[in-house]
Amino acid sequence: MGEVKHILLAKFKDDVSQEQIDLLIKGYANLVNHVEPMKSFRWGKDVSVENLHQGFTHVFESSFETTEGIATYISHPAHVEFADSFLAQLDKVLVVDYKPTAVEP
Amino acid sequence: MGEVKHILLAKFKDDVSQEQIDLLIKGYANLVNHVEPMKSFRWGKDVSVENLHQGFTHVFESSFETTEGIATYISHPAHVEFADSFLAQLDKVLVVDYKPTAVEP
Repeated sequence: MGEVKHILLAKFKDDVSQEQIDLLIKGYANLVNHVEPMKSFRWGKDVSVENLHQGFTHVFESSFETTEGIATYISHPAHVEFADSFLAQLDKVLVVDYKPTAVEP
Repeated sequence: MGEVKHILLAKFKDDVSQEQIDLLIKGYANLVNHVEPMKSFRWGKDVSVENLHQGFTHVFESSFETTEGIATYISHPAHVEFADSFLAQLDKVLVVDYKPTAVEP
């Protein structure tokens, strides 16, 4: 079984309250219950100290078994509806997908 | 035991060859053998299709047990030496650290 990680970096608009952010995170997490190929969801606030975060404050990671699963996710009605309201609250967004690979010594 | 993820997004300069990239990735992975608090390293090329990757082409993820461990890593001589040569080959770099948190339903 493979794994493909879907990482979204976000900066919320200044007028988005903590309560709204909490609700958006719950809504994001809830996609796992609606989109079959989405296998897991975790998130965290940026705590880096190198000052290379380019203003992004939140990291959202989800995992899929295939890149086709991510395509299914992107076009899934539950995701489309969530993404519309989520992206409208963001100042900045960046998304990368990758297949985590270890390096043999 | 906690976990803190250290995610680096990179875009290599156009004149950096695939052989050089392979060597840099091995050098990055090899830091696990020199920096005690660095617990794991994986990487992957960006395969996203949403066109929100902002030009970043490679993702490097490492994990630590504490944010103090990341601070130790950043100032470790093996990392400083590697980072000097690695960063010189990059057009763009972005780093975020976060503690992955699940959302209770």
